[in-house]
Amino acid sequence: MPKPKIEILNDLLGYEGLKIIQRPDIFNFSLDSTLLASFVTINKQDKQIIDLGCGNGYIPLFLTLRTNAHIIGVEIQTEIADLATRSVAYNHLEKQITIYNEDLKQIYKILGSSKFDIVTCNPPFFKYKKDSNINESTYQTIARHEMMVTLDDIVKTSNILLKDKGTLAMVHRVDRMIEVIETFKKYHFQIKRLCFVYPKKSSEHALAMLVEAKKMGSSDGLKILKPLYVYDEKNQYTKEILKIFNYKKDE
Amino acid sequence: MPKPKIEILNDLLGYEGLKIIQRPDIFNFSLDSTLLASFVTINKQDKQIIDLGCGNGYIPLFLTLRTNAHIIGVEIQTEIADLATRSVAYNHLEKQITIYNEDLKQIYKILGSSKFDIVTCNPPFFKYKKDSNINESTYQTIARHEMMVTLDDIVKTSNILLKDKGTLAMVHRVDRMIEVIETFKKYHFQIKRLCFVYPKKSSEHALAMLVEAKKMGSSDGLKILKPLYVYDEKNQYTKEILKIFNYKKDE
Repeated sequence: MPKPKIEILNDLLGYEGLKIIQRPDIFNFSLDSTLLASFVTINKQDKQIIDLGCGNGYIPLFLTLRTNAHIIGVEIQTEIADLATRSVAYNHLEKQITIYNEDLKQIYKILGSSKFDIVTCNPPFFKYKKDSNINESTYQTIARHEMMVTLDDIVKTSNILLKDKGTLAMVHRVDRMIEVIETFKKYHFQIKRLCFVYPKKSSEHALAMLVEAKKMGSSDGLKILKPLYVYDEKNQYTKEILKIFNYKKDE
Repeated sequence: MPKPKIEILNDLLGYEGLKIIQRPDIFNFSLDSTLLASFVTINKQDKQIIDLGCGNGYIPLFLTLRTNAHIIGVEIQTEIADLATRSVAYNHLEKQITIYNEDLKQIYKILGSSKFDIVTCNPPFFKYKKDSNINESTYQTIARHEMMVTLDDIVKTSNILLKDKGTLAMVHRVDRMIEVIETFKKYHFQIKRLCFVYPKKSSEHALAMLVEAKKMGSSDGLKILKPLYVYDEKNQYTKEILKIFNYKKDE
């Protein structure tokens, strides 16, 4: 029996405000997207932002709280792109956000090169091996595994889309850090900010990293930010995380 | 008038035990060496350790608390190597530690290749520019700036000295992290452990990093450890640091 196609309307953050349409059977946004949307540096002069692999539109929706720039979301999976489009409409944000149901590798053919100030991306975290025993739905497999797009594709595409000195911000798993650094270098991105995310203060190791780089940036000025802890010892969200969940427009 | 050549006999750690001869006018050990000597992974089967650019011998002396392996220190500056040699003698550790007053780039010609289980190094942190306005003594300039040895030289030499799967452990400044990662890669080192050091919990950025890599190691398994904070908000050493200063043999 196929799983029921149940849609849920969730709050985007920890209060009544923006809403996001979720499909628990195929796609829910993750905390990684929340952290990335809060982490990326946005300046007042930034006018064009693109989120590669936008899923159900979480990052574009969050970013409307932080900027008046135009935001594009690109999602290859039609049913998930449709969730994003309808969430944008539900929040009456069609003027600020445009969702494209396209392959992100090809989007520059539609939107042009060297046009964007910022690229954000919460990419598939896992390498895809054809013989791996992946039992999840195809939707989730594509979102989480590098079946349709690799890290190399994303960074290469980001280079094409961004203006010189444009910003690429990404979240990824720590165990792929060296590959992230090498791939950024390959496509002329200079890393400027790195933040490591630990489940708890007592965790022995970080799990995720937030990374921000500049296209054709100077080679100096890398900063390792304060670590970010998700849960306290009572398994409640920490103050830093709750602060992000309470992010208000023009804060 | 030349500065007086005053020698001071300090405790190596925060209690009466090992002593180290210091020359405040030319060389004092730094906290970075303490952190590195405590950080490096040492296994029971490790028999040969070498500390490149050992200064007055701080790291070899500390490591005698952690291992029975034979430890070699290499220091190019004669007066500083002499401090190290005399500190070793003062502590009656001549059987475990041997100091060489040599250029570390050439030491493999004396000691052979692929002989060591572990290389440690607290290298010169700063790039050397001939036109830079360096007013310090030559001793300190050589210890802190890449006048006589570069990061590339050190990692290349470490590759020659280490057995396959041998460990290279280094402390360096965060702002050179990308270069460290690239240089390790160039000489076939796979980074396994990284620890970022912050002055305080309230510090916005990490200053130093401790990095450990395996020669010809597999590409997986990078761990970002818990951050290390040096001072608390009252400018006293934190518990973690005090624990290192209380490191006792066979602990």
